[in-house]
Amino acid sequence: MKGWSETELVELVRRLGSAAAPGMRVGIGDDAAVLEVPRGQELLVTTDLFVEGVHFRRRWLPAAAAGRRALCRALSDIAAMGGEPRFAFLSLAVPSASGLQPSASWVRGFLRGFAAAARSFHVALAGGDTGSSGSGALLADVIILGTAPKGTAALRSGARPGDLLFVSGRLGALAAALDSGRRPPPIHPRLALGKHLRSHRLITAMMDLSDGLSTDLNRLIRESGVGAEVDIDRLPLAGTLQQALHGGEDYELLFTVPEAGAGRLPRSIAGVALTCIGRITSGRGAWLVGSRGRRRRLSPGGWEHAGNT
Amino acid sequence: MKGWSETELVELVRRLGSAAAPGMRVGIGDDAAVLEVPRGQELLVTTDLFVEGVHFRRRWLPAAAAGRRALCRALSDIAAMGGEPRFAFLSLAVPSASGLQPSASWVRGFLRGFAAAARSFHVALAGGDTGSSGSGALLADVIILGTAPKGTAALRSGARPGDLLFVSGRLGALAAALDSGRRPPPIHPRLALGKHLRSHRLITAMMDLSDGLSTDLNRLIRESGVGAEVDIDRLPLAGTLQQALHGGEDYELLFTVPEAGAGRLPRSIAGVALTCIGRITSGRGAWLVGSRGRRRRLSPGGWEHAGNT
Repeated sequence: MKGWSETELVELVRRLGSAAAPGMRVGIGDDAAVLEVPRGQELLVTTDLFVEGVHFRRRWLPAAAAGRRALCRALSDIAAMGGEPRFAFLSLAVPSASGLQPSASWVRGFLRGFAAAARSFHVALAGGDTGSSGSGALLADVIILGTAPKGTAALRSGARPGDLLFVSGRLGALAAALDSGRRPPPIHPRLALGKHLRSHRLITAMMDLSDGLSTDLNRLIRESGVGAEVDIDRLPLAGTLQQALHGGEDYELLFTVPEAGAGRLPRSIAGVALTCIGRITSGRGAWLVGSRGRRRRLSPGGWEHAGNT
Repeated sequence: MKGWSETELVELVRRLGSAAAPGMRVGIGDDAAVLEVPRGQELLVTTDLFVEGVHFRRRWLPAAAAGRRALCRALSDIAAMGGEPRFAFLSLAVPSASGLQPSASWVRGFLRGFAAAARSFHVALAGGDTGSSGSGALLADVIILGTAPKGTAALRSGARPGDLLFVSGRLGALAAALDSGRRPPPIHPRLALGKHLRSHRLITAMMDLSDGLSTDLNRLIRESGVGAEVDIDRLPLAGTLQQALHGGEDYELLFTVPEAGAGRLPRSIAGVALTCIGRITSGRGAWLVGSRGRRRRLSPGGWEHAGNT
């Protein structure tokens, strides 16, 4: 980076790291963090790459908003399990080649935005790694450790034929913003909603929408071994139909509810509207059903870049 | 990558992921892995960046050896805590810009080398992320989750004045190899040694040598609030003195032993020689002590690239 060394970057991360947090015996500063998982809880672990030029551009997001976004994308995976996020780790690779280097203030802003967002979600920054990406892009890998009571985490694989299919919020907002030259709307990871749905046993399967409904729904039905029909007229649009189906980066929750239990589901939870958009079937594949009963295949057409394994 | 899509890369990682492992309820394929930490154990977490052009070159290491090396660097951090590695997560960013792209067979080889090494250390590949690094370098972020009985993990902060200072193996082997145009020697993470030292309560502090003795010793004494003297004639050299002091990437263990307990320490453990190289002092800083009592400051001069936070 311009005007400072990697040692200074490491020192800044150390200062921003959590000094003390419940369950954290050792945080930043040793070979590994030492953490406790409360008895009766299982551990949820997700990692999420956030790459300049692929997931964001420096001119597209202020530094602090980029840091916040890097964290919130990963928190959304914990929301999708119905879990509570506990600890964050940040691996940050910063270009050292001239012409690519971000300014020192940009990197500071990114780290401060990340750390401030972690505090606001009661997540302890417990470790990570910093280094050069050489002639490469700025890249962050965000790791979140969360917890849920044993045996209760919401999986993608539990959907059953006859279940109703729901989404939270509205779909296509990021694509609509980018297509019209506006800044991306901030991500609000649906942690309270996910936890409510899981703890009240309202759902059979859940995931977050990161790569677009068309791609992610196909993942859910594959894991569950079922099919799905989506009613085109029920989709809660934030933009066009194409943006809602394929836009990606909505970070809303997609979940399935047994028909008999749908009456117990409120219209909104934690301030987020819930919309029934279709149904799980015993057939194969995902289908869009139109107003006059016309059906067409809903093939994965979302973003390919964020292939969360 | 040449000739295949990101979806295929994700599928390959899925196939290589562990289908079943002790404590793994859900591995690759959901929003997050779902893991159990055995009762009475604490969790050890480390993340380690492995960047092309910074930590390795494609022409410098065969693909499978690069994958193995990426894993073993991170395992060394768990060895340094005296822990047992349990789960690995791999975030892999692959260049999509032409001219930078590795061949499909190189990426397959890297992933297979990583997965084979994980199996050999009984570590379950439980998740990760894959994506494009755009015009950047190939980059892997390796996350290892390990365990140790509660309250026993070996820290950097426990060294006390009067303790003897030890290293395992010999120092400077990587630097000696690279300086003479040879391939880097493979990393043997000192897991059995670290676990033995921790479980037999032989040590007061421990860390692994990733950035060179001069840099890493200064970290250990800073965390412990002590000083150190290194006897220049006792250093177990794999090359020159400079390579041993500042070369980096030795992945040997540096640890401190109370003087009263040094008699209990074998000359080697798990086939790895142990050498007393000096002593912890109540003074400030790290010092090299020569044959005629000459002292000079041992300042951090190791590699700066791998600043593990």
